[in-house]
Amino acid sequence: MRKRRYLILAPGEFAENAKTAQGVIRYGEDETVAVIDPTLIGKRVRDVVPHLSSDAPIVASVAEGLAYEPTALLIGTAPQGGKLPPSWRAEILAAIGARLEIVSGLHDLLGEDVEFAAAARAAGTSIWDVREPPDVPLFSGAAYDVAPPVLLLVGNDCAVGKMTVAIELCAAAAARGSNAAFVPTGQTGIMIAGWGIAVDRVISDFAAGAAEQLVLHAAESAPDLIVVEGQGAINHPAYAPVTLSLLYGAAPDALVLVCEVPHASIPTFGTPVLGYERLIELHEALLATVKPARVVGIALNTRAIPSDDDARREIARARAETGLPADDVVRFGTQAFYDAIVPSITKRRPLSEAPA
Amino acid sequence: MRKRRYLILAPGEFAENAKTAQGVIRYGEDETVAVIDPTLIGKRVRDVVPHLSSDAPIVASVAEGLAYEPTALLIGTAPQGGKLPPSWRAEILAAIGARLEIVSGLHDLLGEDVEFAAAARAAGTSIWDVREPPDVPLFSGAAYDVAPPVLLLVGNDCAVGKMTVAIELCAAAAARGSNAAFVPTGQTGIMIAGWGIAVDRVISDFAAGAAEQLVLHAAESAPDLIVVEGQGAINHPAYAPVTLSLLYGAAPDALVLVCEVPHASIPTFGTPVLGYERLIELHEALLATVKPARVVGIALNTRAIPSDDDARREIARARAETGLPADDVVRFGTQAFYDAIVPSITKRRPLSEAPA
Repeated sequence: MRKRRYLILAPGEFAENAKTAQGVIRYGEDETVAVIDPTLIGKRVRDVVPHLSSDAPIVASVAEGLAYEPTALLIGTAPQGGKLPPSWRAEILAAIGARLEIVSGLHDLLGEDVEFAAAARAAGTSIWDVREPPDVPLFSGAAYDVAPPVLLLVGNDCAVGKMTVAIELCAAAAARGSNAAFVPTGQTGIMIAGWGIAVDRVISDFAAGAAEQLVLHAAESAPDLIVVEGQGAINHPAYAPVTLSLLYGAAPDALVLVCEVPHASIPTFGTPVLGYERLIELHEALLATVKPARVVGIALNTRAIPSDDDARREIARARAETGLPADDVVRFGTQAFYDAIVPSITKRRPLSEAPA
Repeated sequence: MRKRRYLILAPGEFAENAKTAQGVIRYGEDETVAVIDPTLIGKRVRDVVPHLSSDAPIVASVAEGLAYEPTALLIGTAPQGGKLPPSWRAEILAAIGARLEIVSGLHDLLGEDVEFAAAARAAGTSIWDVREPPDVPLFSGAAYDVAPPVLLLVGNDCAVGKMTVAIELCAAAAARGSNAAFVPTGQTGIMIAGWGIAVDRVISDFAAGAAEQLVLHAAESAPDLIVVEGQGAINHPAYAPVTLSLLYGAAPDALVLVCEVPHASIPTFGTPVLGYERLIELHEALLATVKPARVVGIALNTRAIPSDDDARREIARARAETGLPADDVVRFGTQAFYDAIVPSITKRRPLSEAPA
C-alpha cells in the first residue's frame, strides 16, 4: 500500500491537545507533510513539540497546506466525546474538494455526514472513519487459549502514555531480536498501525469481545509477545467501562501500569488519581477470579517534571513503594525497562507451548 | 396510551429461559393473552411457571395465538448476544401479516431488518426495538447532584433477579406511602416500565452517560428514592463493563447485592462466583474514589433451594457473614427487607435537601 502524505488538521490544538496528531507524527508509517494550526503559523513541528523530530511546517489552512502535496487530511485531535467542532467543517470540505482522503478518529462518523459523504462522492475521494468498529461476537473465552503471552497496559488516567509505552516496548523487543505485536485499541493506535478496533466505540455488550478478537488476530502471526494498548483508567467515572473491557477481554498474562506523575486528579471530575499500591490491588483483584494476572512494572510519565534528577527520584520512589521495575521509557529509554519485565512474562510458559 | 394485549413468542424457551416473558407477565402494565411454545401446548402460564398467576394459554404458533385477539407480538427471550434465532422469522412475519405490533429486546434490531421493515410497512404496523438506545451525552457528573438518594442493584451474576428486587422494593415503598422510582436499564425493565435505556446496547464511551441520563430523568419527578436496575456482575468476563457503567454512571448512594445461592460459577466461562465479602469489598473499592457508597443489604435468590427452612438458613448465613440485612424478597416478601434498608438511605440527607 502506498504511504499517505498527511496534512493534519489541529487548529488551536496542536501544541497541547493533539495526542492523535503527535502519535501519528512520531510513530506512524505515513509521512506528515504539514500541520494546520493558525495559532502557530510559521513554526515547524519540532519547534512546538520538542520530542518530535519532524520539521513539517505549520500552516493556517487546508488551502495553504496543499502546497506540500498531501494525499490525505488527518483529523488530528480527539476532543471529549469525539464530536466534530463545527468550525472545522469548511476545512474538511476544502480538503475533500482537493481530493484528499479524509482520515478521522472522531465518534461522529464523517462518512455518515450527508454533506461530507456527498462531497467525497462528487470529488471521487474517500473517508476512513478509523473509529467505526466492525461487527464482533460476544467475548467467548477463546483469548484464554492464545499461545503468546499477552501484556496489557493500564494507567492512572486517560492520555498518560499507555499507547506510547506499548509501542516503545514493541520496539525494544525488536532491538532484542524478539517479535512483539502491538495491538491498537484506540483511534491513534489504529492510524499508526493500520489495523485495530476503537473499543470505546463498540456497543457495551460486545466491548470485551472486541478486545478478544484483537488478541486472537494478533496471535495469528505467532509473535513472541502481544502488547495491548490500554484505554482510560479503572476509576475514571466516564471511561472505566472501556478499561474493564480490555482487562477482561484481552485476557492478559501481565499488566504494566502507566502513571503520569505528579497527577492529583482526573480532569473534569476531580476524581482522585489512585496511588501505585491501590491501582495494583484493584486491577489484580478484578482479574483474580477471571484470569489472574499481576502488574509487572511501572512506566512513569514524568513530562511535567523539568529536571531529570527529580524525575529519577520519582522513579526510585515508585520502585521503592511497589518493589517493581519502574522507569520513564520516553525520557530515559525503553531497553532497561523491557529487559526488567518482559523475560519474566515470556518465560512463564514452558518451551513446548512457545510459538515456533 | 391503550394497553397492549401481548402474544409472547418463546418457542422451546418459556419454562427455562424466558426471563423477558416472565418479567413482562409478572410486572408489566400490559396484558399477556397467550404464549407461543410448541413444547408446552395445552398448558397455561401458571402450570409452567408457578410464581406467575396468569392463566394465559400456551399455543403452538402465531396462527393459533391470534384466536386470543393480541395486539402485539413480544419476543420473549433474550438469547446470548441478542441474536434472532433464524427459525423465528416465519412466526414474526406471520404476526406482522396479522398487523400485530412487534416488540423486541434483541440486539439485532428488527426494524433494521429489510424483510421485517418492508412487511411492517406493507401491513401498516410498527416495530418497537426496545434495545435501540437514544443518543446520549458523555457522563458529566450531573448525577452526583440529584436530590433523591439513588439505590443501585448489583449481583453475583446475570439473571439472578436484580430487576425483580428493584421492582419489589419500589412496590414496598408504595406500601409505606413512599414514592420510589424504578429505573430500567435493560430490555425487560423497559418493556415493563415503558421507558429506559438498554445500557448494554450503548456505545462503550457513552454507557456511563446513559446511566446518568436515566437517573437525571427519574429525578425530575422528585421521588423519595431512585432504584436503578443493575446489569451483569463485576467479575463477569463479558458483561462486567456494563455493570461498571451503572456503578459509576448512576452514581449510587447505596447498593443492594442480589445473589443467587447456591451458585458456584458464571455459566459458559466457569468464572467462580464471588462470595458476599468479596463482592462487597470489590464494589466499594471501585466506588471509593469515584463516589463512595456502601452495600446496605443482601437480597438472596433461593429459587434452587426446595425447602423454606433451608432457604432461611442461607439467609441467616448471609446476615451472619456480612452483618447486613438479608432476605429473599420473592419467597418471603419485601416489606421487612425494605424497612431494614431503605430508611437508613433516605435518612442520610438532611430534611432541607429532601424533595417536597
